[in-house]
Amino acid sequence: MTRADDILRPMRRTIDTIIDEDALRDRLDSGAQLRIKYGVDLTAPDLHLGHAVNLWLMRHLQEHGHRVVFLLGDLTTRVGDPTGKSETRPVLTDAQIDENARAFLTQVSLVLDTSPEVFEVRRNSEWFDRMPVAELLTLFSMTTHAQLMARDMFRDRLAQGREIALHELTYPVLQGYDSFAMDSDLTIVGSDQLFNEMMGRQYQQRLGSRPQSLITTVITPGLDGGPKQSKSLGNYIALTDMAGDKFGKAMSLPDDLTGVWASAYTTLDDARVAELTTASARGGRDARDAKLAMAEALVARYHGADAAAREREAFLRVFSEGATPETTDAVQLTSPVLTTLALLELARPDLSGSARRRLLAQGAVRVDGTLLTDPDLALTVRDGSILRTGRRTWTRLDLPA
Amino acid sequence: MTRADDILRPMRRTIDTIIDEDALRDRLDSGAQLRIKYGVDLTAPDLHLGHAVNLWLMRHLQEHGHRVVFLLGDLTTRVGDPTGKSETRPVLTDAQIDENARAFLTQVSLVLDTSPEVFEVRRNSEWFDRMPVAELLTLFSMTTHAQLMARDMFRDRLAQGREIALHELTYPVLQGYDSFAMDSDLTIVGSDQLFNEMMGRQYQQRLGSRPQSLITTVITPGLDGGPKQSKSLGNYIALTDMAGDKFGKAMSLPDDLTGVWASAYTTLDDARVAELTTASARGGRDARDAKLAMAEALVARYHGADAAAREREAFLRVFSEGATPETTDAVQLTSPVLTTLALLELARPDLSGSARRRLLAQGAVRVDGTLLTDPDLALTVRDGSILRTGRRTWTRLDLPA
Repeated sequence: MTRADDILRPMRRTIDTIIDEDALRDRLDSGAQLRIKYGVDLTAPDLHLGHAVNLWLMRHLQEHGHRVVFLLGDLTTRVGDPTGKSETRPVLTDAQIDENARAFLTQVSLVLDTSPEVFEVRRNSEWFDRMPVAELLTLFSMTTHAQLMARDMFRDRLAQGREIALHELTYPVLQGYDSFAMDSDLTIVGSDQLFNEMMGRQYQQRLGSRPQSLITTVITPGLDGGPKQSKSLGNYIALTDMAGDKFGKAMSLPDDLTGVWASAYTTLDDARVAELTTASARGGRDARDAKLAMAEALVARYHGADAAAREREAFLRVFSEGATPETTDAVQLTSPVLTTLALLELARPDLSGSARRRLLAQGAVRVDGTLLTDPDLALTVRDGSILRTGRRTWTRLDLPA
Repeated sequence: MTRADDILRPMRRTIDTIIDEDALRDRLDSGAQLRIKYGVDLTAPDLHLGHAVNLWLMRHLQEHGHRVVFLLGDLTTRVGDPTGKSETRPVLTDAQIDENARAFLTQVSLVLDTSPEVFEVRRNSEWFDRMPVAELLTLFSMTTHAQLMARDMFRDRLAQGREIALHELTYPVLQGYDSFAMDSDLTIVGSDQLFNEMMGRQYQQRLGSRPQSLITTVITPGLDGGPKQSKSLGNYIALTDMAGDKFGKAMSLPDDLTGVWASAYTTLDDARVAELTTASARGGRDARDAKLAMAEALVARYHGADAAAREREAFLRVFSEGATPETTDAVQLTSPVLTTLALLELARPDLSGSARRRLLAQGAVRVDGTLLTDPDLALTVRDGSILRTGRRTWTRLDLPA
């Protein structure tokens, strides 16, 4: 077995495609340190388990001595409306960029090793800020309109009669050039980034470098069984979620996805994943136990085995084993849709308004394990959901039949 | 009659459209000095009478105190292939750019007044060289893909399945920004530049300036009666042609275009143009005399009345009045298509090969007044054409019936 085999084998489970695998294997076999491009857009620093699949692959490569180059795409955060009239495109100030970068780094460091031997932070403004316009246009000249229009996102927008601004059309080129400028050997991305990273290969080749290899990863359904986790759908587990939230959310997954989640989001070995899949199919207590095992392994990866075991115990005590919390009331709601504050008023009439707001501010309010902090958030409550307020108060929420 | 009426009236004959005429009239009436954008691409400094229509309108405005800003588009001349492998896109060096700029200026100064009160030379690298990439992308964000695709040239290329490189797509934006950066009040262009100069209006408005007015000019048929003069068709009179060449070429125009040329390319008044048009329609000697009058007026505009009268006399002596040049031979060709050198071998068997090449190099070889310098150029000869070799040798070229 070659060194490349050895490194790639445990990665296969979450890899969808490898582009230019031969080159990747050569590089891994050579023993040289690979430079792995991890490019991010600074406007949305909110990572969930779906993103972490890629990060764990990078972490694995770091453990074999390879280097992740965390590339902040700060150039495009400074593209905006010079008249200052548009609310829709706020230009980020340098301070905001730094703040977002720090927030990103905090999240990334929950998975990646950030020691300087295997981690490096770069910004693409390093090369674009000193690039003359004529050179940028020269880069543009290596790509055609037809090639750009082949990109799904652009094609779909045209088909829907939506606008594409000219600067958006140039972004694949900029992202492609990044790969050349930072000397990327490999990048691990979602399939939505495949087009832009293929541009990277094209530009590296045109400019005389070895093209990077590409790995795309499997996409795993969200908590609601929908195609993937997404912030706008609220069907995700954030990397920054506390252990209890991660556990509770994982337990809300449909039974038939337990095996898929175990494969994508835990380090349980393939045999154990197969067992969990089979147990889930049997339903009932077996399915519940399989999901508990998945949730525990998921939490253990981020918070350690002890914390995971504790969360399992707490979960079982409250929801499964019929243990009696200090208080368990039920409240009858007239509608499933209401704000957090309205819910608290119904469920905790014993508290003052300011006491309720304090609970929210302290992070002491959860519905089915999901933390609620915004008093004005519009909730959609399911019949039988459990509201927890403070450490020891649980309220069951009943909806009209 | 307002000042604007007074200035615009003599211009109408060669104006096709005025965009935002009200703003133009206001500016002319105000008495302030207008800044007239005359933007050129430095890769093709070869001006002909068709280009000069616009220059003469600018010259007219200069005579009323307005300023022509001669804008060298040197940015795009430095866009090229960084690998140096492409022969098709040679990047111009700074020295070549300077040389082309000088060549352009020499030609332009045959029409425009280049005194500093009414003439200014700028380069768009002045603003683009110091523009950060983020600012350029911000400019791009103000234009959509759909808007660019509305341009005839792009639409036609797509329809023909031809490529559009991404940098070409950005050129209308760059040209539009030029109008803002140089503070243009007016630009006078061919209709092929209408789209890009409308971009100028859009960018001036977006960036908080008054949009420039636009004048497009009439397009006049070429010497061969084709839609317009063009270098590739060889159906044009160059500004740098000598007086005799201008005269001879003008006399090769089809009779029915004499009036149109007199209107576009001479200062003969409208009544006289009408007379020439009528005379041309009568054919015969009247038509010839009308064309002589047009050709003389055309030459007089560039070389003065005396030179024009001399050329008329010379033309009549040689071609029309049956005067005997020192030598007039005829040579029978077997095919109308042959190289310049092959033609010289047939027509001047008395000369050595090196003597023939010397004649070419000295600019002493013409067919029907058109200068030939390339020995390998493939000619298409018309029956009865006159080959002139040296100052005093004419040869009639006969083709098989």
